Amino acid sequence: MRHTAVLLISCPDQRGLVAAIAEFLLQHEANILHADQHQDAELKLFLMRVEWEMAGFKLDLADFAQAFEPIASRFGMTWRLADSSRKPRMAVFVSKFDHCLADLLYRYQSGELHCELPIILSNHEDTRWLADAYHIPFQHLAVLKDGKEEAEKTQLAILRDLKVDFLVLARYMQVLSADFIRHYPNHIINIHHSFLPAFHGAKPYHRAFERGVKLIGATGHYVTETLDDGPIIEQDVARISHRDSLEDLINKGADLEKVVLSRAVKWHLDNRVLVYANKTVVFD
Amino acid sequence: MRHTAVLLISCPDQRGLVAAIAEFLLQHEANILHADQHQDAELKLFLMRVEWEMAGFKLDLADFAQAFEPIASRFGMTWRLADSSRKPRMAVFVSKFDHCLADLLYRYQSGELHCELPIILSNHEDTRWLADAYHIPFQHLAVLKDGKEEAEKTQLAILRDLKVDFLVLARYMQVLSADFIRHYPNHIINIHHSFLPAFHGAKPYHRAFERGVKLIGATGHYVTETLDDGPIIEQDVARISHRDSLEDLINKGADLEKVVLSRAVKWHLDNRVLVYANKTVVFD
Amino acid sequence: MRHTAVLLISCPDQRGLVAAIAEFLLQHEANILHADQHQDAELKLFLMRVEWEMAGFKLDLADFAQAFEPIASRFGMTWRLADSSRKPRMAVFVSKFDHCLADLLYRYQSGELHCELPIILSNHEDTRWLADAYHIPFQHLAVLKDGKEEAEKTQLAILRDLKVDFLVLARYMQVLSADFIRHYPNHIINIHHSFLPAFHGAKPYHRAFERGVKLIGATGHYVTETLDDGPIIEQDVARISHRDSLEDLINKGADLEKVVLSRAVKWHLDNRVLVYANKTVVFD
Amino acid sequence: MRHTAVLLISCPDQRGLVAAIAEFLLQHEANILHADQHQDAELKLFLMRVEWEMAGFKLDLADFAQAFEPIASRFGMTWRLADSSRKPRMAVFVSKFDHCLADLLYRYQSGELHCELPIILSNHEDTRWLADAYHIPFQHLAVLKDGKEEAEKTQLAILRDLKVDFLVLARYMQVLSADFIRHYPNHIINIHHSFLPAFHGAKPYHRAFERGVKLIGATGHYVTETLDDGPIIEQDVARISHRDSLEDLINKGADLEKVVLSRAVKWHLDNRVLVYANKTVVFD
Repeated sequence: MRHTAVLLISCPDQRGLVAAIAEFLLQHEANILHADQHQDAELKLFLMRVEWEMAGFKLDLADFAQAFEPIASRFGMTWRLADSSRKPRMAVFVSKFDHCLADLLYRYQSGELHCELPIILSNHEDTRWLADAYHIPFQHLAVLKDGKEEAEKTQLAILRDLKVDFLVLARYMQVLSADFIRHYPNHIINIHHSFLPAFHGAKPYHRAFERGVKLIGATGHYVTETLDDGPIIEQDVARISHRDSLEDLINKGADLEKVVLSRAVKWHLDNRVLVYANKTVVFD
Repeated sequence: MRHTAVLLISCPDQRGLVAAIAEFLLQHEANILHADQHQDAELKLFLMRVEWEMAGFKLDLADFAQAFEPIASRFGMTWRLADSSRKPRMAVFVSKFDHCLADLLYRYQSGELHCELPIILSNHEDTRWLADAYHIPFQHLAVLKDGKEEAEKTQLAILRDLKVDFLVLARYMQVLSADFIRHYPNHIINIHHSFLPAFHGAKPYHRAFERGVKLIGATGHYVTETLDDGPIIEQDVARISHRDSLEDLINKGADLEKVVLSRAVKWHLDNRVLVYANKTVVFD
Repeated sequence: MRHTAVLLISCPDQRGLVAAIAEFLLQHEANILHADQHQDAELKLFLMRVEWEMAGFKLDLADFAQAFEPIASRFGMTWRLADSSRKPRMAVFVSKFDHCLADLLYRYQSGELHCELPIILSNHEDTRWLADAYHIPFQHLAVLKDGKEEAEKTQLAILRDLKVDFLVLARYMQVLSADFIRHYPNHIINIHHSFLPAFHGAKPYHRAFERGVKLIGATGHYVTETLDDGPIIEQDVARISHRDSLEDLINKGADLEKVVLSRAVKWHLDNRVLVYANKTVVFD
Repeated sequence: MRHTAVLLISCPDQRGLVAAIAEFLLQHEANILHADQHQDAELKLFLMRVEWEMAGFKLDLADFAQAFEPIASRFGMTWRLADSSRKPRMAVFVSKFDHCLADLLYRYQSGELHCELPIILSNHEDTRWLADAYHIPFQHLAVLKDGKEEAEKTQLAILRDLKVDFLVLARYMQVLSADFIRHYPNHIINIHHSFLPAFHGAKPYHRAFERGVKLIGATGHYVTETLDDGPIIEQDVARISHRDSLEDLINKGADLEKVVLSRAVKWHLDNRVLVYANKTVVFD
């Protein structure tokens, strides 16, 4: 795997932006591998992702912020830099359903997900065997009725201790409190088992079955304080018919959930996702 | 085109049903072309579609009801018979958007839609040119504020005069009254420009754009008294991205609407659709 | 899981078939759960799948053949009966790529694949860890240059000893000999990593990349003596773009291969697949 | 519709490219609406599409070539400039099937296809009514056995007289000669009724039906001297099953052909397509 850097920028759209960025990178002899930009015409917003090879780059990343500051402040940029040699640390939250976890573990082990995985946290014991099979630390932490506040305090402590960067809710069946979420803004990825905004909330497959829809869906999104309302990263659907029972919906849906969640996690890890106006840009 | 008959049956599921129907058809020397059945395990319902060639069939269709009556009443069947030599009479309601109308007209003219088309009714003049190009009668009937009751009375009179069997709302922008709908139960097909139940009601593309969904959809359904809540016949989706403006959504959506509506109309015409429990079975 | 029986029939299409079968099942008080039939108009062939509950069925399955024989011979039927209480025994062949194997193992473990899995056979050691994680016997058997005949002899002996019913080639990179295949006609399922018949043979992703296709595919099929030419059970595709490198194609393709192969295996296990004229009917 | 300019560039990948282009556009006060670039890592090629508003642009497009020349020659660029106020002139070739023509005509009339349409050329009279309905000139030109050379000479003369820029073969059933094609390199768009490279050549639906594929496809591509081998612009597929007869394949395929061809034509008109190495980049 090549050593690269990714720069993500968002700012008000204005003349001279691209020239200034390109000039800056040229000056430090960046060998650009990918560059992609997006202009939101309505909001007059400019968003950019640029990735370059570290080999030959003449600027130490430790000095990047200082060197880039004049451009950033001139154009009013919000920006972040990612260094591919530093793997983000991911925690997975899971309950009893194990299909998403199994999929993430396989992809982690195969190297497809470029991250560390220091912990799997669950309110049940059911998936411990999977964590064991892949040699990932697993911690069971029951969430009792009226015990959520306590549980979340413990969870946050664990995440802090393990220097976790972001969370994946792999069919985790507890609703996180607004307070918890505020610790990881746009850094908690959830898979919802419907094509949002249809069937937000509980038991989406049951309601899809009752409504008689002809396609079922799954949605990977960042978690915000409003349930199932955060910025959507990825969605996909599968065709069903009257021949499909509720159980068939749940089974076909599980396959959707796996691929949608894994794409969302992968794109997050590849620094392809930028959030604005409760939406995402996914640079491809 | 072959001359065929289609029998559609629904009744409580019970032993001996298939044997009785098969025996009946055999006795009259039906040459069965297609037979398809569905059992709803939860509701304990049996639904069937069987199509046979009229050539060689030894029972006059005029006598079918009498001959079939003993079986129908023994099993408590709801049934209907369709004779392919009798083309249903379709009316199309349209407003200003013409993409669905253009698509239906082309398919009608090419013989893909096996029906008569005695009238296009519109509350605007915009699509008259299309009706003229395909030589279909077009009637403009303005629906004034507070004039819906009056307008619907006129519409119903026209439909009655022309012996119209069913209606297609090809992006007709007026909400029909419950009273109007009661004249054509499960015989009004609407295209809604979203993946229902997401974004029911007005301006679905605007709301999809705002929500930042990654797929847009279209839904063909029978119209019931509750807006956008009738039995779904067909749905489909198309992928969009942050690069798509609201206008792009509307344009990509138009292509979806066309194919979804035309499939719904075609299946209705082919007597493939059975409604139960506010859902459809679409025999394929 | 309910105890059921599945009857699969193919024979020349003729009057009275359905009535005779329905009458037979009624007589033995079968509670039919699903029945599906297909008529190939061109080949004048009739194909049927019927599944009924064993609870309440008045005929011992051991006596089925004898009882059904008069009908079978009257209509010239080819038929087979499957008893859901008897799980088929599956062997998986694999080489170095482990994504399909991981997917099959997870589905096997979760109960989605209703079978026994007595052996994983591989010409490499690479996937042993996965077999171990799921506690499935793994046997390494190198296939040396000029040693295929010898290796196949050993493989066949193992399969015979373990009473294996059917084989799944989960990205097994050796071509099986015609002689080997003849032992398992329509009982070896392969996943080919292209949308057959495009890019049959070696290195399909490389060739798809060179040709500049806009979709890549995967094909699950029964293995016949002609390479990549057997009856297709399932296919699916994924969209790619100029942004996708050859490596991206291979990664996206892996996800396709998994779902296509698992569907093919599942349908085979559910006795949904009937082969005729080098095609399949997949009853749904 | 806004007045814009599009610049398409391809050249060897090298440092300073983006900076030079951005600097040039900034200097002439271009208000950039969209910019997209692609680097082919294997071929070390840089491809770019940039679109800006003409309002406020300080360089007359008549002087663009001269002003841009120093940059173009410094980096060894192949480039072209498109002015949105100049609509390309399209000719449609058609035989008897009219579905693609009907679709193109509707999209042309609705303003979706931003072009002139001075002529429809056909070797049959069948589609004249459609041309008439949309008031487009139609010319019938029989192509006799052994008369292709003669016919092509006439066709070329007509195209020249009408200053046609590019051709669309909307299910035109004659193979164009290499000599003819050389007059319009990468300017003839064909729709092939299969998922190329599967089933290239004649009767693809028949062969797809025989092979028992589970998906059918359509391919929009530029015509080159090798039949069905030109750069692919767009492809799509639709699911079929054993229930679909050959006729069903042809009908479902027609819907695919329409959308795939219209996308290819639209992208060509929007100057989104760049050809290299017998592939396309489609900037989105």
